[in-house]
Amino acid sequence: MPKAVCLLSGGLDSSTCLAIALREGYRCYALSFDYGQRHKVELEAAARVAARLGAEHHLVMHISLDAFGGSALTSSLAVPKARSTAEMAHGIPITYVPARNTIFLSFALAWAEVLEACDIFIGVNALDYSGYPDCRPEYIEAYQRMANLATKAGVEGRTRIRIHTPLIEWSKARIVLEARDLGLDFSLTHSCYDPLAEGRPCGQCDACLLRRKGFEEAGVEDR
Amino acid sequence: MPKAVCLLSGGLDSSTCLAIALREGYRCYALSFDYGQRHKVELEAAARVAARLGAEHHLVMHISLDAFGGSALTSSLAVPKARSTAEMAHGIPITYVPARNTIFLSFALAWAEVLEACDIFIGVNALDYSGYPDCRPEYIEAYQRMANLATKAGVEGRTRIRIHTPLIEWSKARIVLEARDLGLDFSLTHSCYDPLAEGRPCGQCDACLLRRKGFEEAGVEDR
Repeated sequence: MPKAVCLLSGGLDSSTCLAIALREGYRCYALSFDYGQRHKVELEAAARVAARLGAEHHLVMHISLDAFGGSALTSSLAVPKARSTAEMAHGIPITYVPARNTIFLSFALAWAEVLEACDIFIGVNALDYSGYPDCRPEYIEAYQRMANLATKAGVEGRTRIRIHTPLIEWSKARIVLEARDLGLDFSLTHSCYDPLAEGRPCGQCDACLLRRKGFEEAGVEDR
Repeated sequence: MPKAVCLLSGGLDSSTCLAIALREGYRCYALSFDYGQRHKVELEAAARVAARLGAEHHLVMHISLDAFGGSALTSSLAVPKARSTAEMAHGIPITYVPARNTIFLSFALAWAEVLEACDIFIGVNALDYSGYPDCRPEYIEAYQRMANLATKAGVEGRTRIRIHTPLIEWSKARIVLEARDLGLDFSLTHSCYDPLAEGRPCGQCDACLLRRKGFEEAGVEDR
């Protein structure tokens, strides 16, 4: 069975992505980050999901992205609430963490190289992506190209790094339906951005609103 | 004066690169990494160089690359000694840290985005690069392309991220001569990979040998 590194935040999308990688027959090495996010409770969700789904290993990397500032997820800026879908669709929100996916993928690439794995899974989504630049297909393609030049494998022509983004073109409703079909226990996951919520989703941040909309459109109950 | 993020290990190359960025008129934000390297003494050199050269700010980011293993720089594997230039020119050495430059550049990119800087300097060198894949021009070009898709600036078409690699085609001798012309105090810098050397260069690792060769060819004394 080939190995894969799977980025896992503990949210619905990355948990579904991990379930897909496992279904495809990979031995999965789940990677999460304590990056100074105020909603650190998502790391408990990531640990629950990795254990329940049967990841080979779960590693939490500590990085201090809060040293840079610039995002509501890592500083005292308020997380926006009750925004409409139209508001979410325009511009880049204050919850954007500069270069976050680039940093996460770079650690995944390092681990993949050590594990001699060619496959990296990331649950980015370009439709409900709330305006994050680093969730778009053209970004992922450019990252993969760079990754193949960055590593031993690329130089030696031995293997090719592939960045898998199975959810990238899916609606949130489709993600919910696929996750249900995969038997994912939704109650293990955590999507809310709000640090004040203390483990209970706030119901009003972009992440909560997109999740609710997805479940409603899918006609599935979110436990 | 425009801002630039400058990666700074404390070695000769990155110190020269910082001096070049300053000469070009940038306000420099120096970024170093405590990444689990056993030759941590290089961080003291980085702090000395940043202060002496007049960087605007010097930030040390802590990341645990040793959690992945796979390199003599972050594990108990022995650092190779007394290799010939021919040996160094073939294959990727055990001191290669998987995806290190990709990770370093990704943090630089995040900081640049927060600072609203468009310029990143990295002192990579493709000639004396000891076989590291992530020091080659084609890698840097692919990184820059990805970086411009990864960030707010790329989406909004506001600014363009430029990765500057002034040393990439230079011989070590030329680096020594340029550094001397810039007035760099060589005694501030530290190049040795060997953790056993306790602040004194071992004289036998690839980094020491390449440095000595560069000074000899330049006809300059390394204090």
